[in-house]
Amino acid sequence: MIALIPVLALLTGPAGAEEGMWTLDAFPSAKVAEIYGFAPDARWLEHVRLSSVRLAGGCSGSFVSPDGLVMTNHHCAHGCVEQLSDPDHDYVSQGFYARTLAEERRCPVMEVNVLVGTSDVTGRIAAATRDLTGEAYTAARKAETARIEKACATSDDVRCDVVSLYHGGRYVLYRYRRHQDVRLVFAPEFAVAFFGGDPYNFTFPRYDYDVSFVRVYHRGKPARVKHWFEWSETGAKEGDLTFVPGHPGRTSRLQTVARLEYERDFALPDRLLYSAELRGLLREFMNRGPEAERTATGLFFGVENGYKARRGRLEALQDPRMMAEKIREEEEFRAAVDADPVLRAEVGDAWSAIADALVELRTLRTRLGFLEQGRGFLSDLFDHARTLVRAAEEAGKSDDERLPEFTDARRPAVAQSLLAPAPVHEDLEIAILGFSLTKLRETLGAEDPIVKRILGDKSPDELATGLVKGTKLADPDVRRTLWEGGKAAVDASDDPMIQLAREVDPDARAIRKTYEDRIESTLDRNGEILARAWFSTRGAGSYPDATFTLRLSYGAVEGYQEAGRRVEPFTRMSGLFERHTGRPPFALPQRWLDARDRLPPDLPMNLATTNDIIGGNSGSPVLDRDARIVGLVFDGNLQSLGGDYWFDPSVNRTVSVDARTLLAGLEIVYGADRVAREIQRARR
Amino acid sequence: MIALIPVLALLTGPAGAEEGMWTLDAFPSAKVAEIYGFAPDARWLEHVRLSSVRLAGGCSGSFVSPDGLVMTNHHCAHGCVEQLSDPDHDYVSQGFYARTLAEERRCPVMEVNVLVGTSDVTGRIAAATRDLTGEAYTAARKAETARIEKACATSDDVRCDVVSLYHGGRYVLYRYRRHQDVRLVFAPEFAVAFFGGDPYNFTFPRYDYDVSFVRVYHRGKPARVKHWFEWSETGAKEGDLTFVPGHPGRTSRLQTVARLEYERDFALPDRLLYSAELRGLLREFMNRGPEAERTATGLFFGVENGYKARRGRLEALQDPRMMAEKIREEEEFRAAVDADPVLRAEVGDAWSAIADALVELRTLRTRLGFLEQGRGFLSDLFDHARTLVRAAEEAGKSDDERLPEFTDARRPAVAQSLLAPAPVHEDLEIAILGFSLTKLRETLGAEDPIVKRILGDKSPDELATGLVKGTKLADPDVRRTLWEGGKAAVDASDDPMIQLAREVDPDARAIRKTYEDRIESTLDRNGEILARAWFSTRGAGSYPDATFTLRLSYGAVEGYQEAGRRVEPFTRMSGLFERHTGRPPFALPQRWLDARDRLPPDLPMNLATTNDIIGGNSGSPVLDRDARIVGLVFDGNLQSLGGDYWFDPSVNRTVSVDARTLLAGLEIVYGADRVAREIQRARR
Repeated sequence: MIALIPVLALLTGPAGAEEGMWTLDAFPSAKVAEIYGFAPDARWLEHVRLSSVRLAGGCSGSFVSPDGLVMTNHHCAHGCVEQLSDPDHDYVSQGFYARTLAEERRCPVMEVNVLVGTSDVTGRIAAATRDLTGEAYTAARKAETARIEKACATSDDVRCDVVSLYHGGRYVLYRYRRHQDVRLVFAPEFAVAFFGGDPYNFTFPRYDYDVSFVRVYHRGKPARVKHWFEWSETGAKEGDLTFVPGHPGRTSRLQTVARLEYERDFALPDRLLYSAELRGLLREFMNRGPEAERTATGLFFGVENGYKARRGRLEALQDPRMMAEKIREEEEFRAAVDADPVLRAEVGDAWSAIADALVELRTLRTRLGFLEQGRGFLSDLFDHARTLVRAAEEAGKSDDERLPEFTDARRPAVAQSLLAPAPVHEDLEIAILGFSLTKLRETLGAEDPIVKRILGDKSPDELATGLVKGTKLADPDVRRTLWEGGKAAVDASDDPMIQLAREVDPDARAIRKTYEDRIESTLDRNGEILARAWFSTRGAGSYPDATFTLRLSYGAVEGYQEAGRRVEPFTRMSGLFERHTGRPPFALPQRWLDARDRLPPDLPMNLATTNDIIGGNSGSPVLDRDARIVGLVFDGNLQSLGGDYWFDPSVNRTVSVDARTLLAGLEIVYGADRVAREIQRARR
Repeated sequence: MIALIPVLALLTGPAGAEEGMWTLDAFPSAKVAEIYGFAPDARWLEHVRLSSVRLAGGCSGSFVSPDGLVMTNHHCAHGCVEQLSDPDHDYVSQGFYARTLAEERRCPVMEVNVLVGTSDVTGRIAAATRDLTGEAYTAARKAETARIEKACATSDDVRCDVVSLYHGGRYVLYRYRRHQDVRLVFAPEFAVAFFGGDPYNFTFPRYDYDVSFVRVYHRGKPARVKHWFEWSETGAKEGDLTFVPGHPGRTSRLQTVARLEYERDFALPDRLLYSAELRGLLREFMNRGPEAERTATGLFFGVENGYKARRGRLEALQDPRMMAEKIREEEEFRAAVDADPVLRAEVGDAWSAIADALVELRTLRTRLGFLEQGRGFLSDLFDHARTLVRAAEEAGKSDDERLPEFTDARRPAVAQSLLAPAPVHEDLEIAILGFSLTKLRETLGAEDPIVKRILGDKSPDELATGLVKGTKLADPDVRRTLWEGGKAAVDASDDPMIQLAREVDPDARAIRKTYEDRIESTLDRNGEILARAWFSTRGAGSYPDATFTLRLSYGAVEGYQEAGRRVEPFTRMSGLFERHTGRPPFALPQRWLDARDRLPPDLPMNLATTNDIIGGNSGSPVLDRDARIVGLVFDGNLQSLGGDYWFDPSVNRTVSVDARTLLAGLEIVYGADRVAREIQRARR
């Protein structure tokens, strides 16, 4: 984890062979053809776009049959699997398989999006924000965004997002087909989906069966789709060209040095320390008993995963060579700007404006994080309460003056998340809300007026217990009544969680407004200026930082060198069984042990490719040049964690489940023939 | 906590008015006289030295009667109070008071040291290590240290430590009278000793009654001492001169910038992340039930305290102005060295040697921390096992070749700690050992050979459970038998914890040796060189970084400005009751509530002084110019946490219990007249 990673390809150098999370309208087909002898054409790219899906919760996936069958990772459907479970049916530990269409069960919260089109709206945003700064800039951009999205979102089946690419260099409207009726078809046991658990997370060689299948429905029937990926019969071999379409969440490759330093010194340590403590708490919480373990596993996994990813990013930023290189590049860019009088006038003091805003953010960040960004009130029930309180408040404003998450265009997504009948686990809610209230008091101080007002004479745990046991918001019908009742209903509510959300809201909104008007507007405004300068000094041929929008990466099946040893690109089925100890996280489900003799020991299990991906790409298919599925992305190796900041093709690897093992598991281990046949039959 | 602290006094500037943790042989009496009109003379200083004590566990204290009565903090005796408790007698929550001498109860582990003399041994160490580097340097210094200490430690009642001052600028032999029979006399309830708990920790204004009394015994009777501090009848008032003798543990004011950066970027984040997770675990562990809460409180408090202190230190090091000032000073020092050809030749590339060693330490630090420095095996029972295994092994070597902690001179201290009949709490041991083994696997990786050898097929929790339940080392008699049986007995043992310690030892010793030979020797050797150069550029009039040896600080009772508001130097008794909410950590014991009407509301409760202290000073007395007790140090304010690196007299404050409240508590709240009379009668 503390290996020093050679810095080979950075933002101002030429992109490395496989570097790039490309938007589909600017995919470098010619370059791919040059290296691999194959140039994806417009038809190929359109097929890939319409066969790819986004899981609104933060993952990727793909259609694998004309009947709306979607393949993604187990860990992307974990929430659904957990929500469908109850004390008598633990599908997380036992797995889930719908033998018939009728047995497919609706996921309470899952939403699947398909990108149907994009259009550039840079000119509209620029016109609306011309010459504005600070609060005026934020308000104008927000209002214009709301207008564009509202005009686009013509029905609840459509989702429209204005996305800032290149940190404001371009604004693009993304239009999605929204599928809210998503049903669980198949999920293996958590123990094999996440074999090796946290110790193996972000490592390679690897042995996971991290897959699930869900199906999108339309009017109660499987949705018919025109585009889906076929299954490869042969799979990939070393050196083969691979494509990964998907929705990488966030990268910071084009950020200024000041922002990277802020990330290294403040943002990452803050998050890591908070989640380390929560992790310790959850670890011990699960000792309360089987039900505690069942209900907390998903959250625990998420916390551990985020912890390991951020720890890796921190270590990447602590590599002095990497930071020195970033500084050198920024100096080069500044010199290029300085050398051009027009550019110099346009850019002005954008770099120092960003750096100064980040210094100011240091003193705001704690209050912002705790009151507004969730750290002080870690609770699904509180989230519901805040949504209800704010939605009621915002409904009274014109669309373009609202908080962006409460515009008309976003309302269906808010309702989906608020009204979903996901179970609430009372003990877990009390534990994490009590924890976060304790951290709130610790961080803002026991004498802070808002802390005193919230806690009164109570201890954080006592308050959390009273709130969770006293609120009725665990009942989706109660939430629906308040949602539909609007401001009058919410104002009249004496629900204690609603009361808390009301109590906190003025302070939370105030710190958010200060942040948006003083910090965010400066960062964004000056980010736009730098992005434009950057375009004009280096022209096209670049890709924007990841924004949880559809991107396509190309690469190849390839091993690498680690600590002086060669790591082969494929692992084999035999390796999985050799690592079975019988104790979690190295304990295989009985079904796998029973099937051992029927599984070919040499079957390729997981594979490494040089595709450039990041968190959010989970569930992406790995495609061959015929756009057939040869694998299913579920992770990157440890060396990929620096990928937030730069791409090192020599060691950064995407880690996937091999398509041959995906199929063998369905057929041999699970007898899930209905699914296996569906994906095999799905020839175009 | 994120206030930006003005940098007013740094290492190469003139020491601020009150800056300095002075050794008693170099106390700046003339300067004190200049400011306060009082110059402590040699007799005064000797009296202070012999009345001051060190608690070997990491605290300070003082004799307050000729019958060996020692005053220190509650939190310094917390371990003893907990060890004397059992499920039916919870002295931590109920408090402890021995109404008669016969009821005073021996603390299983506590050791009290009185400094009887020091002598400079710089010449001997220098002669022994001349022209040596690396392993040869380490070995020679270790051997010479062992010889000096052995010659000094003429009986088990004597403790002798060779201490490096000014990072090797001077070596001094400290000779202590060792008291191992220490008995608990009085301790209040934890709830009032640590009123406000973690939220109030390291803050001021404050309302704690953090005191305990113990008594040193000699041959079964109260030890008669010739020096002790008298009690002040009047207490101190604003502006009064105050002295604090005590044992500050560690500061880094004279360290190079490279070391501070290493601390900021690696050492502190590593420790913070580890303890954050442990803190979360312990927080939830205490929910297991009253016995879990009782047994884990002390550890939890220690973890929280260390976390808050380190978090404050990290924030201090993240202050860019502070680091810029440190860099500027180092550049000045380097320029002064460069300007002097003799010095330049002597210093050579000492700075880069230190920086390079720290780069190498980055890659070693994890293995070192987990295998050798305790992070992988968090368990009293494992500590015992390792002590037994290593002591047996080391006994076969000549004294000067042994690990320094196992020389003949150190043997009594090792035995005291190993054989003490402190209770072992099985569930807590399992929880924290399981946690640390999990972190060991996480950090070194599941595929690391030592991890695989230790865990085998077991999970960390399973291994921890088997070890703790299987070992017999919780029984002090079993430990004594192995200790006295030596290598033959230890080698023959099939105790599972002994077996684990044996299994780990080769790897742990190897990484320690690499560290000592390659890193530590470079840091120390070059630290010595820089210390000598520093002396020759700035001469005398400076104080060494803290080393848990006796120091004396002077200052005054003084408030300060915080966030634009004046903080008064005294808090009042009424403030304590106003903050009582009935819920921990703001819940007063019933005894205090009952006594409320009899306690004067205006009684000074806690006070702030400008004395320069740091962790290790807990339990120090606050003295007036007549060396009478006016207070009892128990904390510093938040602004004192940067004191590890520099001293800011405008806001850095020592926080103490006022002597008047100490006495009123004994008399009015506890009716502890025996103790109250003893300290009042103790006129000289």
